[in-house]
Amino acid sequence: DIIAAIEAALAQDMFLRPPLSQGAEGLAGRHVVVTSGPTHEPIDPVRFIANRSSGKQGHAIAAAAARAGARVTLISGPVTLEDPPGVDVRRIETAQEMLAAVKSALPADVFVAAAAVADWRVEAAAQKIKKSGAPPSLTLVENPDILATVAAPGQDRPGIVVGFAAETGDTVRRAQEKFLRKGCDLLVANDVSSGVFGADENTVHIVTASGVEDWPRLGKEEVAERLAGRLARMLADRNSETSA
Amino acid sequence: DIIAAIEAALAQDMFLRPPLSQGAEGLAGRHVVVTSGPTHEPIDPVRFIANRSSGKQGHAIAAAAARAGARVTLISGPVTLEDPPGVDVRRIETAQEMLAAVKSALPADVFVAAAAVADWRVEAAAQKIKKSGAPPSLTLVENPDILATVAAPGQDRPGIVVGFAAETGDTVRRAQEKFLRKGCDLLVANDVSSGVFGADENTVHIVTASGVEDWPRLGKEEVAERLAGRLARMLADRNSETSA
Repeated sequence: DIIAAIEAALAQDMFLRPPLSQGAEGLAGRHVVVTSGPTHEPIDPVRFIANRSSGKQGHAIAAAAARAGARVTLISGPVTLEDPPGVDVRRIETAQEMLAAVKSALPADVFVAAAAVADWRVEAAAQKIKKSGAPPSLTLVENPDILATVAAPGQDRPGIVVGFAAETGDTVRRAQEKFLRKGCDLLVANDVSSGVFGADENTVHIVTASGVEDWPRLGKEEVAERLAGRLARMLADRNSETSA
Repeated sequence: DIIAAIEAALAQDMFLRPPLSQGAEGLAGRHVVVTSGPTHEPIDPVRFIANRSSGKQGHAIAAAAARAGARVTLISGPVTLEDPPGVDVRRIETAQEMLAAVKSALPADVFVAAAAVADWRVEAAAQKIKKSGAPPSLTLVENPDILATVAAPGQDRPGIVVGFAAETGDTVRRAQEKFLRKGCDLLVANDVSSGVFGADENTVHIVTASGVEDWPRLGKEEVAERLAGRLARMLADRNSETSA
């Protein structure tokens, strides 16, 4: 009947849009820039170096921020995900393209670097490398550090800069080192040694200047919701500090 | 009305299942093994080397052979495509895993090596390589040559072995060299220097011992249909030669 159909439609809607974390509405009207997915660094026209990243966590964060009323720019590497609704999505392939897209998206109130950016790139050959004789030796050069670049002090630095750390072992200690080294305000760390890539769940640790929070194993959507609430509260705290 | 609905359903069905090329039914009851997609060669738990390949052409060939009545085993690298209906799909990640899966799928009447197999792999690090100091130099080692291995004379050699060549420039000459070097019976060559990867169309050249055929620009489904017909005729010719 009609009532059952309406109830089913509402239930479906609830499923698509989980309830907001307490306080996430503090992001309303703010500009949030999120990077997501891997970057692909060409070796030649046929081959490339990539990172394992489905983009699920970054896209979920962009979606959660948009649901909280933020203006969201999502800069995404090659992923097979749908664009989150209400989000301005810009697609790039390499780390250098991602940095240029981030710079052109600033200024922002919050920057979330969820992408798995390739640390190195190869000087790309114009033609396909032939398989003849000995295997080539790939000379790698360092890519720009997007997180450190955005987190560096300056006029365009967003109020809150969030980094991600994918570690295999000794996760929290390495995440704390990365937090200090990059100059970000919050770092989301996870241990990727067992089945996180492409999965729907994530176990993360939140590193801030106040210490480390261990979050339970959660769906990536729930991690995104919690993080949106956490960022809204950080923004509110910053504003009260500034006005105090 | 009902007739219009049936007509629409039939039209839809026609769209999903294009008509068979003349003679493709000669594949009925034959075992066809197809490789498709890229391989991913791990650098460490986070990074890997990949080839640009959507798997569209290989999957279309597997689907066309299945429609022609063949028993089809599709050995696929990481792709985002649906499994073709009526096809036994085995998913692998690396070139070494692909070779093992091909060997376990043999014997076959026809082998189609449509996958973009990585020529080299990296000795994988157990832990994530840290970004500290100078970029690492990646020492590459040669991967097994799946096409040449299957095409080599022997008891398990399929009656027809089909290779693919993705070239950037001087396509036909290089494809003829590859045809001779690999010992295959038919080689499908295309120029990948302009927008073939992930596209729905393909312009191919067919290299056999009799010479080169230039096919027009066709949808990848149509290339698959034509190739299925071509392979069925080759099988029929072989059989008449053998019984003559």
